[in-house]
Amino acid sequence: MPRRLGDIGEFGVIARIERIAERVQGRSVELGIGDDAAVLRPPPGERLLVSTDALVENVHFRWATQAPVTVGRRALAANLSDLAAMGGRPLGFVLALAAPPSLPVATLDGVARGLTAEARRYACPLVGGNVTRAQRTSLTLTVLGAARPGRILTRSGTRVGDRILVTGSLGAVALEVARGGRVRRVPRPRIEAGRALARLPKVGGCIDVSDGLEADLGHLLAAGSGGPLAAELEQARIPVPRGFKAACRRAGLDPERLALQGGEDYELLFTLRPAAPAARELTRRLGVPVTEIGRVTRRQRGRQASAAPGWRHF
Amino acid sequence: MPRRLGDIGEFGVIARIERIAERVQGRSVELGIGDDAAVLRPPPGERLLVSTDALVENVHFRWATQAPVTVGRRALAANLSDLAAMGGRPLGFVLALAAPPSLPVATLDGVARGLTAEARRYACPLVGGNVTRAQRTSLTLTVLGAARPGRILTRSGTRVGDRILVTGSLGAVALEVARGGRVRRVPRPRIEAGRALARLPKVGGCIDVSDGLEADLGHLLAAGSGGPLAAELEQARIPVPRGFKAACRRAGLDPERLALQGGEDYELLFTLRPAAPAARELTRRLGVPVTEIGRVTRRQRGRQASAAPGWRHF
Repeated sequence: MPRRLGDIGEFGVIARIERIAERVQGRSVELGIGDDAAVLRPPPGERLLVSTDALVENVHFRWATQAPVTVGRRALAANLSDLAAMGGRPLGFVLALAAPPSLPVATLDGVARGLTAEARRYACPLVGGNVTRAQRTSLTLTVLGAARPGRILTRSGTRVGDRILVTGSLGAVALEVARGGRVRRVPRPRIEAGRALARLPKVGGCIDVSDGLEADLGHLLAAGSGGPLAAELEQARIPVPRGFKAACRRAGLDPERLALQGGEDYELLFTLRPAAPAARELTRRLGVPVTEIGRVTRRQRGRQASAAPGWRHF
Repeated sequence: MPRRLGDIGEFGVIARIERIAERVQGRSVELGIGDDAAVLRPPPGERLLVSTDALVENVHFRWATQAPVTVGRRALAANLSDLAAMGGRPLGFVLALAAPPSLPVATLDGVARGLTAEARRYACPLVGGNVTRAQRTSLTLTVLGAARPGRILTRSGTRVGDRILVTGSLGAVALEVARGGRVRRVPRPRIEAGRALARLPKVGGCIDVSDGLEADLGHLLAAGSGGPLAAELEQARIPVPRGFKAACRRAGLDPERLALQGGEDYELLFTLRPAAPAARELTRRLGVPVTEIGRVTRRQRGRQASAAPGWRHF
């Protein structure tokens, strides 16, 4: 019989969570996990960034198709991606774990390994936690970051005439999910690219692609200024991974739809004024491939900014 | 038919969460809810405090016995109590809401009213949120606070010979819960008392009573220094509300046990060096009743620091 959370008790679970914290140190952490609150020294003169996100069993992941280590890695990657989209760097995170007593200890250990791996890679230590019983497992993370004032990206700021660009490629996670097989891919939050972008002048708005290009572009346009905005996208320019179209066709899937509507790629989607550097120069400065995929227009009366919704939760 | 979350959709739910944010402003908030992350200006020279806590349906509350407004109030009060135990003051909080599509909109509105009421009372604005579908409702909050360096209370620092004190009274929530009737009581997080205590010299350790006096005293002793610690409590001095013993007896309940083991009172439990001010003087300085209930001793070999566990989650 595998050992289960019910066998090791609440304090056994807490001890395992605390091990994540022990394995990654943070310069800003004065008092880490284990007290009523963590104590951080925020970098002087900088702004504090805060974002929260949850992964829920059978909604965002299934144990049948995702290894526990992947669930752990994706949980932190998704949160770090929100920091990336603001141009921030990580200071630390807190974890609220809810799980049934029947969850195997090995599963918790896998999740903890995944969280630790991402925490180490992005220098984002666990500074606090909470453990509770629940019917289904969920991981709710709140990530803290820092950025210098004036070096913060937001969703707002897009105008008519702006160019639309995206980092990396889109659709790989959606393809894995649509195939119904194991989900192995853990997108990289674009922390360094976001920070580099925040140093550039002539940026409009920025968002990370979590709900899908179409839906997140809709958020970016809705937060823009100068009247209702729309976008002209050049479908053929939307960057997809090597071999993506052939893999989609083999699986009987529509590659254009997956690239447009598939979520969780965690690439940065942003707008730039026309006079900003070209995509090739941005690729150099951001350290990741950057592709220009369209431009912002004025929305025609009676037309929608973006045609199809992404994944909605209710 | 009552309207349900499934009827108003994810963006309808988000709009209701955003209304909580609109109703309470915060001086430290530069960019509130609605972007990938919130942007805060941490008070210069101060330390940042971070704590996370979750309320899960059928584990921490039941809709049958708690009004939605009470669930909302208690969720924020519990988190603020963690700040209080550190001597901090609130800067803001983020909310991760998980709920089934079948949840009535009126229930969500009640929870939101409760959160708003506490947020306003303690000047703790909602700065970010996340909404997801789940089988059961849960509210996971992360609260941010600030405190000046050297004015931070921790669990550690208790020594042999320290006096043990507690604010307010214990057992009222446990009595409500044990009776099985409606839970109406919302304990007040002791923010001001915690700040006043943090200004005093000769404080040992501090914790808030969330799991019950006995269990939380155990945490305080375990985090102390100078060898294994134990406590001598004067049971008769443990402060209970007016009429508590009679009410317990009428309900066939043991008042001593409820006062010792009942949780969620959110009073401050702390230790002081012998030379620190007397309880009467502390009552004046902290602005709440303070009672001395015992003292810290060296633990005898083979004896436990505290006899009975509080509420454990696995």
